[in-house]
Amino acid sequence: MVLLSGGVDSATTLAVAMDHGFLCHCLSFDYGQRHRLELDAARAVAEAIGAADHHIIKLDLTAQAGLGKSALTDQIPVPKDRHDDGRIPPTYVPARNTIFLSLALAYAETIGAFDIFIGVNAVDYSGYPDCRPQFVRAFEDLANLATAAAADGRGRFTIHAPLIDMSKDQIIRTGLALGVDYSLTHSCYDPADDGRPCGRCDSCRLRRAGFAAVGIKDPLRYQ
Amino acid sequence: MVLLSGGVDSATTLAVAMDHGFLCHCLSFDYGQRHRLELDAARAVAEAIGAADHHIIKLDLTAQAGLGKSALTDQIPVPKDRHDDGRIPPTYVPARNTIFLSLALAYAETIGAFDIFIGVNAVDYSGYPDCRPQFVRAFEDLANLATAAAADGRGRFTIHAPLIDMSKDQIIRTGLALGVDYSLTHSCYDPADDGRPCGRCDSCRLRRAGFAAVGIKDPLRYQ
Repeated sequence: MVLLSGGVDSATTLAVAMDHGFLCHCLSFDYGQRHRLELDAARAVAEAIGAADHHIIKLDLTAQAGLGKSALTDQIPVPKDRHDDGRIPPTYVPARNTIFLSLALAYAETIGAFDIFIGVNAVDYSGYPDCRPQFVRAFEDLANLATAAAADGRGRFTIHAPLIDMSKDQIIRTGLALGVDYSLTHSCYDPADDGRPCGRCDSCRLRRAGFAAVGIKDPLRYQ
Repeated sequence: MVLLSGGVDSATTLAVAMDHGFLCHCLSFDYGQRHRLELDAARAVAEAIGAADHHIIKLDLTAQAGLGKSALTDQIPVPKDRHDDGRIPPTYVPARNTIFLSLALAYAETIGAFDIFIGVNAVDYSGYPDCRPQFVRAFEDLANLATAAAADGRGRFTIHAPLIDMSKDQIIRTGLALGVDYSLTHSCYDPADDGRPCGRCDSCRLRRAGFAAVGIKDPLRYQ
């Protein structure tokens, strides 16, 4: 099971999982994010990299559903040209990776998979608590207590976070070496109506700095 | 935050939380369970016990959505007059309590609550792995790593499972002492079209044995 958002990190994670010889089932979430471009990107990435299948779960995580509020799901401005001040930015979605991993766990148990890949990264990221290695380890512990498959001794779940210690340029180098076509990915939190990325949100800034550090041109056309 | 299914255990848990002085926000799930009576029961219970509010999250956990399969969501027979053989029965829904607690955590973080109540019980239950005390502790650990509220030091999440060590008759005695009206609750996995419980599924059997041990009549009318 590979959690696939359609961004640089999850596309690279899928390529790494394929390279390890896994047959990959991808999972994306239509959770009320303002920009659906990422679901189109996830579809394109899954197909290009050769995933076995790609499933989209619909789940309302917006303030309208009583959840949120986040700049990714609600009418809250996305910060631009932000300087990292150690604070968690308004693009944080409460418990998002916990919810996504829980549903991935249910899928994995249903299809008999025990390996779940998530593209979280604790180096060039926005300071989200659910991207840290201790979060990943805690979810793995939980998964092995929460499920019939683990309780029955059919297997042990592993949460793979192959990018956790990589910088953004290391991630991009890894993906390029595995043939990832980053022109298919989408990273921007606040794209224009025509889909062009803003270049100035946290996600664009980390991506652009990564490509700059690698020394190659980002294939996306910015606003 | 109180997870409320509308059964004996969650109704009692809500009454215990109210008795502890909490203002209670209840959460139920419309997850594709075959029998929607439990959502009606949850509404009635929340109102009767005096919850501050009651929210229902829609989320498809059925085999049709690629998840499952469970006798609670799909066309799989519900076991009747089952003898406990140590196996997890087909009414198990993969990772259900992990998913429910994840969404409760997102809600709690959104409204600034740090106490989450769940009516799991490891004595008179069906052997589900996600009803055990070690599961509850692992989720609490996860919650305190997964969220901005915990990372920022605004508080520490506690997962309360006040029924975890109680037998079914202790649960019913506790609820009766707190004034719970069990005629409003719904327990059956396989009710008749007119809503009457079967009396023979795991859930009915545990409930009936509990009322019998207390020595009072179960207010429900069985088939």
